Amino acid sequence: MRILHVVLVLGLVAVGDTRVRADEGMWTFHDFPAVKVKARYGFSPDQAWLDHARLSSARIAGICSASFVSANGLVMTNHHCAHDCVAGLSTKEHDYVKDGYWAKTLDDEKKCPDMEVHRLEEITDVTDKVLKATATKMGAAYTAALREISAAIEKPCQKDGAADHRCEVVNLYHGGQFMLYRYKRYTDVRVVGAPELAMAFFGGDPDNFEFPRYDLDLSFVRVYENGKPAATPEHFGWSAGGAKENELTFVSGDPHTTEREITNAVRVFDRDVVAPVVTNTRSEWRGQLAQFMRQNDEQKRIATEWQFYNENSLKAWKGRQAALGDDVMMKSVAQAEADLRARIAGKAELVRRVGDAFEALDKALAKWRPFYHRFYFLELWPKGDLLTDAVRLVRAADEKALPDGKRLDEYRDSALPDIEQKLASSAPIYPAREKLAVAFWLGKLREELGADDPTVKALLGKETPEQVAARWVDGSKLGDTAERVRLWKGGKAAIASSKDPMIVAVKLFDAAARKVRKMNDDEVEGIEKSAGEKIAKAKFVLDGRSSYPDATFTLRLSYGSVKGYTSTAHGTKVSPITYLGGAFDRANGAPPFELPKTWLDAKAAIDPKVPFDFATTNDIIGGNSGSPIFNQKLEIVGLIFDGNIESLAGDFWYDEASNRAVGVSSEAIIQALAKIYHADRIVEELRPAKGKKQ
Amino acid sequence: MRILHVVLVLGLVAVGDTRVRADEGMWTFHDFPAVKVKARYGFSPDQAWLDHARLSSARIAGICSASFVSANGLVMTNHHCAHDCVAGLSTKEHDYVKDGYWAKTLDDEKKCPDMEVHRLEEITDVTDKVLKATATKMGAAYTAALREISAAIEKPCQKDGAADHRCEVVNLYHGGQFMLYRYKRYTDVRVVGAPELAMAFFGGDPDNFEFPRYDLDLSFVRVYENGKPAATPEHFGWSAGGAKENELTFVSGDPHTTEREITNAVRVFDRDVVAPVVTNTRSEWRGQLAQFMRQNDEQKRIATEWQFYNENSLKAWKGRQAALGDDVMMKSVAQAEADLRARIAGKAELVRRVGDAFEALDKALAKWRPFYHRFYFLELWPKGDLLTDAVRLVRAADEKALPDGKRLDEYRDSALPDIEQKLASSAPIYPAREKLAVAFWLGKLREELGADDPTVKALLGKETPEQVAARWVDGSKLGDTAERVRLWKGGKAAIASSKDPMIVAVKLFDAAARKVRKMNDDEVEGIEKSAGEKIAKAKFVLDGRSSYPDATFTLRLSYGSVKGYTSTAHGTKVSPITYLGGAFDRANGAPPFELPKTWLDAKAAIDPKVPFDFATTNDIIGGNSGSPIFNQKLEIVGLIFDGNIESLAGDFWYDEASNRAVGVSSEAIIQALAKIYHADRIVEELRPAKGKKQ
Repeated sequence: MRILHVVLVLGLVAVGDTRVRADEGMWTFHDFPAVKVKARYGFSPDQAWLDHARLSSARIAGICSASFVSANGLVMTNHHCAHDCVAGLSTKEHDYVKDGYWAKTLDDEKKCPDMEVHRLEEITDVTDKVLKATATKMGAAYTAALREISAAIEKPCQKDGAADHRCEVVNLYHGGQFMLYRYKRYTDVRVVGAPELAMAFFGGDPDNFEFPRYDLDLSFVRVYENGKPAATPEHFGWSAGGAKENELTFVSGDPHTTEREITNAVRVFDRDVVAPVVTNTRSEWRGQLAQFMRQNDEQKRIATEWQFYNENSLKAWKGRQAALGDDVMMKSVAQAEADLRARIAGKAELVRRVGDAFEALDKALAKWRPFYHRFYFLELWPKGDLLTDAVRLVRAADEKALPDGKRLDEYRDSALPDIEQKLASSAPIYPAREKLAVAFWLGKLREELGADDPTVKALLGKETPEQVAARWVDGSKLGDTAERVRLWKGGKAAIASSKDPMIVAVKLFDAAARKVRKMNDDEVEGIEKSAGEKIAKAKFVLDGRSSYPDATFTLRLSYGSVKGYTSTAHGTKVSPITYLGGAFDRANGAPPFELPKTWLDAKAAIDPKVPFDFATTNDIIGGNSGSPIFNQKLEIVGLIFDGNIESLAGDFWYDEASNRAVGVSSEAIIQALAKIYHADRIVEELRPAKGKKQ
Repeated sequence: MRILHVVLVLGLVAVGDTRVRADEGMWTFHDFPAVKVKARYGFSPDQAWLDHARLSSARIAGICSASFVSANGLVMTNHHCAHDCVAGLSTKEHDYVKDGYWAKTLDDEKKCPDMEVHRLEEITDVTDKVLKATATKMGAAYTAALREISAAIEKPCQKDGAADHRCEVVNLYHGGQFMLYRYKRYTDVRVVGAPELAMAFFGGDPDNFEFPRYDLDLSFVRVYENGKPAATPEHFGWSAGGAKENELTFVSGDPHTTEREITNAVRVFDRDVVAPVVTNTRSEWRGQLAQFMRQNDEQKRIATEWQFYNENSLKAWKGRQAALGDDVMMKSVAQAEADLRARIAGKAELVRRVGDAFEALDKALAKWRPFYHRFYFLELWPKGDLLTDAVRLVRAADEKALPDGKRLDEYRDSALPDIEQKLASSAPIYPAREKLAVAFWLGKLREELGADDPTVKALLGKETPEQVAARWVDGSKLGDTAERVRLWKGGKAAIASSKDPMIVAVKLFDAAARKVRKMNDDEVEGIEKSAGEKIAKAKFVLDGRSSYPDATFTLRLSYGSVKGYTSTAHGTKVSPITYLGGAFDRANGAPPFELPKTWLDAKAAIDPKVPFDFATTNDIIGGNSGSPIFNQKLEIVGLIFDGNIESLAGDFWYDEASNRAVGVSSEAIIQALAKIYHADRIVEELRPAKGKKQ
C-alpha cells in the first residue's frame, strides 16, 4: 500500500480510570497479567508460552498484523493487508484482486513490490536511560532530547547491519516507560494465495465494522531469505475444531493507536477539531473516488485500493466521532480526570512532580487550534504516490545531512531502509489516479488556507488545481523506479539540480509544511509527551502499574472469549458465530453482496454448518487487522479482520457488553482452501491436527 | 431551484442570555427597537417608514430575500436566488448561466418555470387564540393542536382565493408569540437580467463566506399580473452615492433559521449528531458532483446549480460545526442557561409554569438520538427532482384526503398552490443528474440503515444502487410536466393505479419515512415547541420582551453600519470596502478567479475607484441572500449576498467584533449595468437620484 499512512499521534497523556474491566486490555508481552487470565479463565500463560506466541506473531510493516503458520516462512494475514501487493502484480490482462491468486508451486509465488514483514525478537527496558536524558525538559527541548537519546540507543542495536534488523525505542504509558524493540525484517515477501476481492470483502463498505458477517478476508504470503523460503521454526499450530462459544481466545498483534488515557483537553480537541476535518475530507475524497470509479472499468481497477483504505479509515473515524459525540461518556471520563487531579492534589510530592502539566497542555492546544487544518493539509493528508515520493526524496536529502538525533523521526537511520524500499518499489504508477489525488489536494489546500496564502499562490499561479496536477504528473519522471533511486542516491546535489515538476513542487511548499510540522512536534507533541510523562509517573505512584499502555503499533496480547452481544445501534441480540451456509443466503448477486463463481460452483461441496466468521471479546483496534486468534495450545482458531461498530469507541474506552473483535474461523479457512480454491499445497503445509471434521 | 429545501427545525427553545449586544438582532417589523437605533445612530424609524420598508421588501419563495426597486414590478435579488430560473431557461445551445442574460425589451423577459415572489402585506397577533388551543398539551398532542388551530386561523385569511395570497401562522419566540402573516403571491416571475456566473460567483467556493470579495451576485426579475408588469408603487429608491464607512445601514429580509435561544441539550445534539451527518454527507455528495462535472461540459452545465447549493450549504454547516466546536463559547452559553434556571427556581410561580420542560427535552433528545440518521436519510436528504416530485404526489394524494388541520404542515391548504406550481414547472429534468442523485441516496440509505433493513431490501432487491437508479429514471414519465399534473389532479386513484417506477418506489419507503417523521414531529418537535413555550413565557416574566425572536424565514429588519474588522481566522485587519479595480488585480485567468470577457473588454470604461463589495455589522444569516441594504432615506445602497466566515457562528450567537454581512454596492451595480452590460433600460428604471458620479 503506497498511500501515505499517518498515525495521528495527538493526545498521548496517561490519566483516567485505572480499573481494568473484564477482558479489557492490549497488554505488552513483558507485562502480561497472567494472574487475571488465570482468575477468569483458569489458564495461566508461562514465559515459554508468551515467548512462543510473540515469535509466532508478525507485523506487516506500516499497516497490519500477521502470524507465522508454518516452519517454512508461511505468513497468514488479511486480504486487505496484502491488497497493495496483489494489486501491484495485476495488469490490464490479469486482475488478481478481482479474480484471486493461488500459487500452484513455490515458483508461482510472486514477489510483492514493497511489502515487509517484521518479527519482534528482543525487548529491552531503556526507561532509565531515556528519563535521564529528558529530565527537566519540556516542549521542544523534550522532543529534541528524546530524539537524540532514541537515536543513540537505536544505533548500537542495529548490530547486524541496518538492512536485516530494525530497532525502535518505544514510548509506553505516554512517557512512563521506554522499551527498545528489536525486530527481524523480512524484505523478500511473496504472494502465496488470496481469494477474490468479492469474497475477501463480501458486504463491502456497508458491512464493514458490522456483525453478523460472511467474509473471507484472508491472504497468505511467504517470507524468503537468500531466494529460499525462510526457516521459521517458531510458528502457530492449527486447531482441529476451531473455537467454541465462550472458549478462551488470545489475539496478538500491533494495534495502531488508542487514546484511552489522554487528558480531557485532548479528547475535546479530537471531537471539536480533528474528527470534523478528517471525516469531512475523507467523505469528499470518497465521493470523488466513487464517481471516478464509475467512469470505466480501468479507473475502477486502479482506484479500488485507495477507495478501500479511504472508506475503511472514514468509517473508523466516523465511529470515533460517534464515540466522542457520546456526551454522557465524555462527561464520565472528564469526571475520572477530575478525580485523578483531586488525588494528585492530596499529595504534596505529586503536586510538585506534576507541576502545571495539565494547564500547559490546555494552553498548548488552545494555541494549536487555528493551525490544525494547515497541519492536516500540508503535512498529514496523502497527496498521491508521486508527490509522496517527492516529499520523501526532498526531505531525506536535507535530513540525512543532519546528525541522526536531530532529524525528523521518520528519517532517522533506523527508518531509512524502509524509505529506500518504498522508493525502489516496482509498483506501478497510474497517471489518472495521480492527477485526481493531486488536484484534490491542491483544491483543499486553496480552500483551507485561502486563495491569498503565499504557498497556495506559489503552487497554483494562474492555473486551476486540475491544470497544475496534469502538468506535474505528465511532466514527472518519478514514476520510473530508476529515477527515484538515482535521486535517492544522489542526495542533496541531485535534488538541488532536479527540474522534475514534482520535486520542484515540493520545494515550493516544504518550508511551510516543515514550519507547521515543527510547531506540532515542539509545541504540541513535545508538551503532550513531557506532560504525559509527569502524569504517568504520578499515576504509577498512586496505582502501581495495574493497567496497560495505550496502543502504539507495537506488539500486544489480548485475552477474551467467543461471545454474542446486544447491539447498541439496533437493540438486537447478535449470535457470536455465522456459518458458511449463511453466505449463500445473504448473497443477492449484486456487488458488494455477490459471491464469486468459485463459491457458487463449489456450493454442493461446502458444509453449510461450518462456522464462517465469529465475534470475541478480545480488545483490539485498527492495526490488529490480520492478527491471529489462537487458543491456549497456541493453535490458530481464527483470523481477526474487523471489529463491530461498537468497537470503534475502543479508541477511547472499552465496553465488554458490546465491543467485539471479528474474525474468520480456522475451519472456514480450511474449507475454502480445500473445497473452493483447491489449494491443497497450503492445506498440507498448515497440517491441521488429526481428528478435524473438514 | 428544485432541490428539496428542508430547514432543520430542531431545537427551537427560548432560553439563554437576554442581553442584546450592540447591532445584534433580527427584529420583527411589529416590534422594532427604534429607541435603540436612535440612541446609537441618532435616527428613529417611524411607523410609516417601517411600513414602507416592509412593503418594499420581498421573499423569493422557499429560498431567498429580495426587494422591489421600481414601480413596475422590478425585483432585485442575488444571482444565486434566480440561478435555477436562469439555468432552466438555458439549453445546450444557449447557456445563460455561463453567458449571462439581459432582456433588451419587456418581450425578452422570459418566464421563470417555478419562481414565486411574496410580499408581506398584513401582520395580525393571534397568540391568544393559539395558546388557548394548545394549553396544557405536550408532545404529539401539542403538535396536533397547533396544526389544527393554525389551519383554522389560516383558512378565513385566504379570503381572496388561495392562489393570490398565502397565510401563515408564524411561531415566534419558540411558542411565546404567534402571528398571522398574510402574503401577496406573485407567481408570474420573469427574468430581466443576470450577469455571467463567473462574475456572480467570482472567487467560487474558495471565496464563499470570505472577505475581501469582488463579486456581482446580482439578478433582476420582474413580477407580472395578467400578463403585464405588476404595479408596485411601494418600492425602495436608489441612493446616489452608496454607503460610506460607519454609515447607518438597514437590511430587511427573511433569515432562515437561527438557534440562539435553544437549550443546551439541543446545542449539544446539534454538535454531536446533526453537524457530523450533515457535513459528512454533503462533503461526499460534493465529491461525487465534482468528479461528475469534470467528465464533460454538459455534465458540468447540468450539475453546476446543484453543486453551488450543496457547497454553499456545506460551507455554512462547516461554519456551524466550527462554532459548536468552540468549547469555551459552548460552556459560556451553557452557563447562561444554568443562570436562567436558577432564576426560574427562585420564583415558585415560574417553577410551576415551567414544570419539567428542560428535563422533558433532555429525555426526548436522548431517545431521538439513534433515529436521527434514519430521519435524515429517509426524510431530509434531497433525492433528485423526480423522486422529490414523486414524494409530493404520493403524499399529497394521502394528505389531501385528511382534514386540513390533520395534515403534515407542508400539505396544508395554504401550501398546496406552492406544490402545484412546483409540479407544473417546465424546468427540464436531466436523467444523468437524476441517476447520480438517486444512486447516491440509495447508497447512503443502505449504509446508514444497514443492508438488513426491510426498506433497504425492498428498494434494492438484488440490484446495486446504480442499477436501481437507472431503472427508475429511465422508466419514469415524471419528467413530463403533463404527467405530473395528471397525477396531481388524479389524486389517490391516479396514484394507486400508477405503475411509474418513481411512484412505485415512494410507496416502498414512504411508510418508513412517515413513521420516523411522525416520531420527529410528535416526540421531538412537539416537546421542543411545548417546552419552548413554557420557557419563553417564563423569560417574558423575568425580562419582558427585550429581545428578538430566533429567525424563522419570515421578514426581519436589522440595523448596523459599514465597518471593517479583525479576522479571527487569520488575525489580519480587514477594510470594509473593496473597489472595482481590485477585481482586475485579483483575477488570475483561471476559474473561479476568471473575469468574463465583458469585464475585460470594458476595463477602460470602468472607474476602478468605485466601491465594489462592502461589509456591515448588520445581523444576518442564510435566507438573507438577496436582501436590500438601504439607508435611512429608504434608498438602496447595496445588495446582501454573503456573510464572512465569522458570521456563521451567528446561528448560535452574534459577535459585533467580527460578524459581518457582505453586499454589493449600489454604485457597482449601476457601473456594471451601464458600462459593462449596457442595460440602459434598467438603469433608467432604477433612476438613481441626481448628482451621482457614475
